[in-house]
Amino acid sequence: MNSFGVRFSITTFGESHGSAIGCIVDGVPAGLLIDESYIQSEVDRRRPGLTKFATQRKESDTVQILSGVFEGVSTGAPIALVIYNENQKSSDYESIKSLFRPAHADFTYFKKYNIRDYRGGGRSSARETAARVAGAAIAKKLLETFGIKVQSGIFAIGGIEAQNIDFEYAKTSEIFALDRLKEEAQKEAIREAQKDKDSIGGCAYVKILNAPIGLGEPLYEKLDALLGGALMGINGVKAVEIGEGINASKLRGSQNNDQMDKTGFLSNHSGGILGGISTGEDITLKIHFKPTPSIFLNQSTQDTNAEPINFTLKGRHDPCIAIRGSIVAEAMAALVIADTLLLNASATVENLKKIYGNN
Amino acid sequence: MNSFGVRFSITTFGESHGSAIGCIVDGVPAGLLIDESYIQSEVDRRRPGLTKFATQRKESDTVQILSGVFEGVSTGAPIALVIYNENQKSSDYESIKSLFRPAHADFTYFKKYNIRDYRGGGRSSARETAARVAGAAIAKKLLETFGIKVQSGIFAIGGIEAQNIDFEYAKTSEIFALDRLKEEAQKEAIREAQKDKDSIGGCAYVKILNAPIGLGEPLYEKLDALLGGALMGINGVKAVEIGEGINASKLRGSQNNDQMDKTGFLSNHSGGILGGISTGEDITLKIHFKPTPSIFLNQSTQDTNAEPINFTLKGRHDPCIAIRGSIVAEAMAALVIADTLLLNASATVENLKKIYGNN
Amino acid sequence: MNSFGVRFSITTFGESHGSAIGCIVDGVPAGLLIDESYIQSEVDRRRPGLTKFATQRKESDTVQILSGVFEGVSTGAPIALVIYNENQKSSDYESIKSLFRPAHADFTYFKKYNIRDYRGGGRSSARETAARVAGAAIAKKLLETFGIKVQSGIFAIGGIEAQNIDFEYAKTSEIFALDRLKEEAQKEAIREAQKDKDSIGGCAYVKILNAPIGLGEPLYEKLDALLGGALMGINGVKAVEIGEGINASKLRGSQNNDQMDKTGFLSNHSGGILGGISTGEDITLKIHFKPTPSIFLNQSTQDTNAEPINFTLKGRHDPCIAIRGSIVAEAMAALVIADTLLLNASATVENLKKIYGNN
Amino acid sequence: MNSFGVRFSITTFGESHGSAIGCIVDGVPAGLLIDESYIQSEVDRRRPGLTKFATQRKESDTVQILSGVFEGVSTGAPIALVIYNENQKSSDYESIKSLFRPAHADFTYFKKYNIRDYRGGGRSSARETAARVAGAAIAKKLLETFGIKVQSGIFAIGGIEAQNIDFEYAKTSEIFALDRLKEEAQKEAIREAQKDKDSIGGCAYVKILNAPIGLGEPLYEKLDALLGGALMGINGVKAVEIGEGINASKLRGSQNNDQMDKTGFLSNHSGGILGGISTGEDITLKIHFKPTPSIFLNQSTQDTNAEPINFTLKGRHDPCIAIRGSIVAEAMAALVIADTLLLNASATVENLKKIYGNN
Repeated sequence: MNSFGVRFSITTFGESHGSAIGCIVDGVPAGLLIDESYIQSEVDRRRPGLTKFATQRKESDTVQILSGVFEGVSTGAPIALVIYNENQKSSDYESIKSLFRPAHADFTYFKKYNIRDYRGGGRSSARETAARVAGAAIAKKLLETFGIKVQSGIFAIGGIEAQNIDFEYAKTSEIFALDRLKEEAQKEAIREAQKDKDSIGGCAYVKILNAPIGLGEPLYEKLDALLGGALMGINGVKAVEIGEGINASKLRGSQNNDQMDKTGFLSNHSGGILGGISTGEDITLKIHFKPTPSIFLNQSTQDTNAEPINFTLKGRHDPCIAIRGSIVAEAMAALVIADTLLLNASATVENLKKIYGNN
Repeated sequence: MNSFGVRFSITTFGESHGSAIGCIVDGVPAGLLIDESYIQSEVDRRRPGLTKFATQRKESDTVQILSGVFEGVSTGAPIALVIYNENQKSSDYESIKSLFRPAHADFTYFKKYNIRDYRGGGRSSARETAARVAGAAIAKKLLETFGIKVQSGIFAIGGIEAQNIDFEYAKTSEIFALDRLKEEAQKEAIREAQKDKDSIGGCAYVKILNAPIGLGEPLYEKLDALLGGALMGINGVKAVEIGEGINASKLRGSQNNDQMDKTGFLSNHSGGILGGISTGEDITLKIHFKPTPSIFLNQSTQDTNAEPINFTLKGRHDPCIAIRGSIVAEAMAALVIADTLLLNASATVENLKKIYGNN
Repeated sequence: MNSFGVRFSITTFGESHGSAIGCIVDGVPAGLLIDESYIQSEVDRRRPGLTKFATQRKESDTVQILSGVFEGVSTGAPIALVIYNENQKSSDYESIKSLFRPAHADFTYFKKYNIRDYRGGGRSSARETAARVAGAAIAKKLLETFGIKVQSGIFAIGGIEAQNIDFEYAKTSEIFALDRLKEEAQKEAIREAQKDKDSIGGCAYVKILNAPIGLGEPLYEKLDALLGGALMGINGVKAVEIGEGINASKLRGSQNNDQMDKTGFLSNHSGGILGGISTGEDITLKIHFKPTPSIFLNQSTQDTNAEPINFTLKGRHDPCIAIRGSIVAEAMAALVIADTLLLNASATVENLKKIYGNN
Repeated sequence: MNSFGVRFSITTFGESHGSAIGCIVDGVPAGLLIDESYIQSEVDRRRPGLTKFATQRKESDTVQILSGVFEGVSTGAPIALVIYNENQKSSDYESIKSLFRPAHADFTYFKKYNIRDYRGGGRSSARETAARVAGAAIAKKLLETFGIKVQSGIFAIGGIEAQNIDFEYAKTSEIFALDRLKEEAQKEAIREAQKDKDSIGGCAYVKILNAPIGLGEPLYEKLDALLGGALMGINGVKAVEIGEGINASKLRGSQNNDQMDKTGFLSNHSGGILGGISTGEDITLKIHFKPTPSIFLNQSTQDTNAEPINFTLKGRHDPCIAIRGSIVAEAMAALVIADTLLLNASATVENLKKIYGNN
């Protein structure tokens, strides 16, 4: 249940305050250049402690490759990646040891497993997503080989939305803002929340360029179903939109249909997916994150004995999980595209003949 | 790729204009009463031709059980359900034989498979969803055994939203409207679109009651990930929201966090899921459908030779796919809950001891 | 749990005395000619009632294609095949309704599911294998496209072994005997058993020709692991051998190693598989079937109330399940090869470039 | 493709001469005592270098737990186990860098992946099985909770078979011999082969005690199919027998059928499995290993340029892989039983009611 993907897959492990997190990337085609520094640079993008808009927890998040690579190239064997945890202050969590932090997974994990691993969320911590990003770096390299690019950034913070989408700018922004003109207002919304010992929600945007036509395997491995599931499974995500998204439910067919002329599609309300299969147009996704559950205001909750309790949280937390979450969303999208790319390879007899020849 | 679910699963087959559609339901625990008339009544809820708000295509959609049931009870063997197609006017599709209908899957299926099965969408037709509803009827019966109820209705049509949620009323409404006071305006929006030879989008709402705490298997079979994927994979769905949904991305933590007192949760912004695991509260979902792609206005597109062409569609189509789509959303939600119910059975050694005893 | 295969898969349903059996074949690449009469001819090979060496139960075993084929060609959609049961004399089973036939699945199914579907074994009946053979006929057609051939026959009956392997002869033999010189002795062994109201065991032999080098996905989808599992799962199989098989455990390395010269392998003790991957040599398998459990001698057993009982079975049964079982073994081998053929398509970046081009 | 198991699964990684091997054990029910020293002791049983009947390669094979355990108890999260490689003399392999060792996976891996990872077999090395044994130690602890015991030993070396089965004695034997009276002859056969610079085949025996009735999920997750696949996938295994095994194919039904009286089964030719489901009797398996491919005699082969070449191997190798292989066979059997134990938990509505209560 800790595996994602059919043919190109990751299996992850690790808790926020255990000794390490990591993943096994399986199904990587042999012959792919595996650039350790690229994997590291991807993981660094979501690393904590880089700006004042992220948690101040310090982790070097150094990725080690344990297997599957020989002389810099993938061998077809599973690639194991491990990141040892460094900054494990379990003591931070002594005070919340026996209570359920609101909007966290404390309550549900305890009830499901009858174990209270109170150290920073344990398995449910967003720290696990560093392993996904590491694995997805390999997916991204594979996609690049075929000219496919996956990009991300922050679309909105607290409802303040970008009017302009600039992925290059986002790379340079402390909050990965897509719109330079909205960035300051978005930052200010975060600062205000921080000042009030509170947190704030946000929306990430992911765009996939140059995906070939044909990705997605109907009916239950549709590209939109896979993306929807992958993104909704990221910590704190409460809604996912593809293409026109929610707005499509308010439109008429004449407004939403993408007509064609001889050059191809005249619009892209579909967000690059029709019938669960990629159209060759840009694939566009909005991913809505709830505000960080960890706030520094007094809250009421229960403890493990079902006794009510009031408490005020301490520690180091992101004021807005959407920011680093956008990197995770990009990672999950890359994993889905890599998987469907491999699955589609055997969609037709014609494809197979290209590989096995014609009898 | 035509299977859905891990432990409780369906595998579906069939095209809109082939000889039959159907599904194999696997993993049904032995000893469940299988009521053929209940399955039929569920399928009837999404049957075409019942009201003027649905396609006028007539199908009796008679479900036959081919296996897995003995003396009215599930045996543990796979249950095969088949619905023979009756109203297969392939001739309806002669005129669109070689062109790609905008916003349909014609283009992508052709490009992926290099085959043009022009008969009403073939495999990509929403007709396949009748098989899901049939299979899900068995899931719903299983859930009922444990007091779990899955309900659905129409939340919005063309942006006209319900203010009140009444699932009992929805059952009696021609458009499954959840709010009797908004129903007429919603109907009128559909009629207006029909009058204009157009179609309209809508939003379905699904609520799951009495799901036990603990459903969902972290990290990649999280309950929200499974629901997100299942619902996003329904024909025409472009966005899925859980609990507070998109709105959560605009709130502060202090507004969105669900605090607790001794009686339990004080609010349900989470929509019944924390950390990917059910909280025991109601699970609430919004599913946004695009407008029906089939409209009767002149549209421009390409044909299979990549030549541009203008055309006007004929035939019988739903003016708003969200209406019958809400039944499919309910079905997919039921399948997810049934699957996670079975998966969770082995989550703890304690659970296993209840079954196998203690050595 | 009723699905077999990862990328090319079958999901089967049906009981011996239910209304139908069948399967959904998923993952069939689009563009394959689907010849209904070929599927029928394959199913006919294992049809009961053809010779006095098979059960006299009469079934026409007529296969119907319900989906996935358009104008004689696979569309990429799942292909559903159904065989309606005709000769359902449940009354034959009245007398054994509440007792567990020795060496049958009656006892274990009852204990597992707490249901006694006494009609001829229900789901555990070998009748289900007709559905596998039907599905495998499509796999065989796919393999043929690439020159791959799967063949079977009877190697031994009651320990009387073939000295010569002639698949062409086997096709004409009533017992699929591979060695014309041993056929009469093998038949006589069966007749003797029948005369004694008894049954007899046997061994089938399967050979796969022209499998390309590279099939099998290490480490847990190795070709030998998949074949081993597929064949051991056939009703009545108690042992599977690959290549040198059991004898390899008695040899020295110098005897068993397949050395090479410039033309390739000098021997084939490996049976065409090294490290779980096909070598390009013939893949050879021996599949050992126990004697038919259904015999007409007095036996002692328990009933569903755990009371001891003596009984003598009546009815129509194969005297030697290995005979028709050899067709099933061939079918399962074909399914495995088809699946690994598809999976291997994405094994290298080089393969993918043949499909997606080079950026 | 490097994952094994459905609900209780392992995903392994690592090459013989990479930096580490390991596995992620997923699906471990929460609340299981995880005894690190027990895992280590299991791994130590197959550790190289312990006797003169095993390779002299020295490895401490120290297992580290990276996740999934809190305060000595499983949390429900995946348990990652890692073993760092210590004795990586890649230089040993310089001389065989570009040639294909007979009966090894060198040829097939090179042809499949177009990569020559010449370091001791890379991924195809039996070294990977240490990770399986580590993961299976957790499975064995789980099984023990329910009184289930998995045992192994050497049945035959070079055709010299045990006449008596004594698992307790096997634990003390340098070659895990099951029969103390045959041990010396078996050892001598190995010594003779070693003296001749050769190797020798052997047969392991596995017995599972106290498996509850009902394990195995028909039809394609049958217990015998799973065991057959799991065991055939072990390095060097060429045949697997269950219960009466090959001999069953020589018997009559009256000889092979297990009759019952009021106390239960009167014999166990079935090897504890009927219809793919456990009967509650002992599950018995024979696993036949080919002789070690690595011998020190001159052999002819090809190199990566398809040029013929004669060579004589150097290095440290097991003279008989069946010996340490028996531990791996035991491990794989334990993994299968653990998986089916979890899967069976939801086989009936009755079981589910024990967990979720009755509405």
